[in-house]
Amino acid sequence: MRIAKVRGTVVSTQKEPSLQGVKFLVVQFVDEAGQLLPDYEVAADGVGAGIDEWVLVTRGSAARQRPGSEARPLDAAVIAIIDTVNVEGRFVYSKRDQYR
Amino acid sequence: MRIAKVRGTVVSTQKEPSLQGVKFLVVQFVDEAGQLLPDYEVAADGVGAGIDEWVLVTRGSAARQRPGSEARPLDAAVIAIIDTVNVEGRFVYSKRDQYR
Amino acid sequence: MRIAKVRGTVVSTQKEPSLQGVKFLVVQFVDEAGQLLPDYEVAADGVGAGIDEWVLVTRGSAARQRPGSEARPLDAAVIAIIDTVNVEGRFVYSKRDQYR
Amino acid sequence: MRIAKVRGTVVSTQKEPSLQGVKFLVVQFVDEAGQLLPDYEVAADGVGAGIDEWVLVTRGSAARQRPGSEARPLDAAVIAIIDTVNVEGRFVYSKRDQYR
Amino acid sequence: MRIAKVRGTVVSTQKEPSLQGVKFLVVQFVDEAGQLLPDYEVAADGVGAGIDEWVLVTRGSAARQRPGSEARPLDAAVIAIIDTVNVEGRFVYSKRDQYR
Repeated sequence: MRIAKVRGTVVSTQKEPSLQGVKFLVVQFVDEAGQLLPDYEVAADGVGAGIDEWVLVTRGSAARQRPGSEARPLDAAVIAIIDTVNVEGRFVYSKRDQYR
Repeated sequence: MRIAKVRGTVVSTQKEPSLQGVKFLVVQFVDEAGQLLPDYEVAADGVGAGIDEWVLVTRGSAARQRPGSEARPLDAAVIAIIDTVNVEGRFVYSKRDQYR
Repeated sequence: MRIAKVRGTVVSTQKEPSLQGVKFLVVQFVDEAGQLLPDYEVAADGVGAGIDEWVLVTRGSAARQRPGSEARPLDAAVIAIIDTVNVEGRFVYSKRDQYR
Repeated sequence: MRIAKVRGTVVSTQKEPSLQGVKFLVVQFVDEAGQLLPDYEVAADGVGAGIDEWVLVTRGSAARQRPGSEARPLDAAVIAIIDTVNVEGRFVYSKRDQYR
Repeated sequence: MRIAKVRGTVVSTQKEPSLQGVKFLVVQFVDEAGQLLPDYEVAADGVGAGIDEWVLVTRGSAARQRPGSEARPLDAAVIAIIDTVNVEGRFVYSKRDQYR
């Protein structure tokens, strides 16, 4: 999984019928020091994540391992809202402190 | 999924028999600020997308999660035509305004 | 899928038994303007492609979505010989004109 | 698989229910000479790996090929703690010598 | 598949139980002209490959398409020992001539 920050949303009316009701989030990846990377992904939201929250993004067939999404053409999903990221004993991110 | 712009088409007569009737689109990826990236993909069209439209492209086994495509050797598909992309409260793209 | 040019072949005697009879092609990827990229792949030939022809290459589990290849350890396959690539109304490649 | 060094942990309360009890490790990839690379991954721990240990990380659907994880939305997992890495007859890493 | 050169081995005692008996090879990728690339992979050996031999490496779910490996958490495997690589009519590699 990759650590990412929720940056925005994508809206689509004309789409695969199985995607009805799926919320698409624009998530931007973060490096292990907490800096935003140029890479992003559009991921299905599975956990009610909000703008600016740090999340775990899973990619590939893993994105369909959620109840109701097994047959959707998804290759990326937000599967967790991050509380803390700790690297070498230091908190790189803590949700409580809000965006260091 | 990735955001991409439809740029063109690929035509092939001699191909895997299961690919009969599949429309192949050349889609070029777009960064989160709306700029075209050098990367492209050839994706099966699932939603009737037209040249210059912005679309969502799914890759990997997800491209076969569409009725009739389960056994086709596809690794990329257009699954949605984008109405709007909103990043940090700003519209990066709006189909109505046509290609900002 | 990616657009590639067939550049050569790989021959192997000592291999997984299920690979008997599979022809391995060296294919080099091409950018959307028709220039050769440094990236290549070794792909199983599914359509009788010849040296210098432009082809569509599928990667990942899609490479096994062909009759007889379901249980082979393949992660790339040539699934179509390209007739034309058209980008923004211009032919980047036409098989008839042979290699522009 | 890739060789990586365990650098830290990610904690999440609000997540896919199937992820209850999964320990998330921040692992940073190492090149074949033993130098840390900028790339990292968040991987589910399957073997009780500790901070600073070198491990094997598997990605994609392989991360779910472990008893109990078949239906979890995981795309990366630590599957082995490395004892030694030997390249061209030289030990690049030996757990006994602890971090060369 | 990718062309790679076998460079070394990885040994692990503490690992997923299903990995007992799997030999892990460090393989370094080679470009289409025969030069070593910085990228490597740790791949399960399926064909008895030795140090310095050139091999075909398959990645992703393809690595598990071998008898006995269907349920192992593998994402890379050596599936063939290469005899010859021929690009544009020239032998880039021939096992008989040993490492050009």
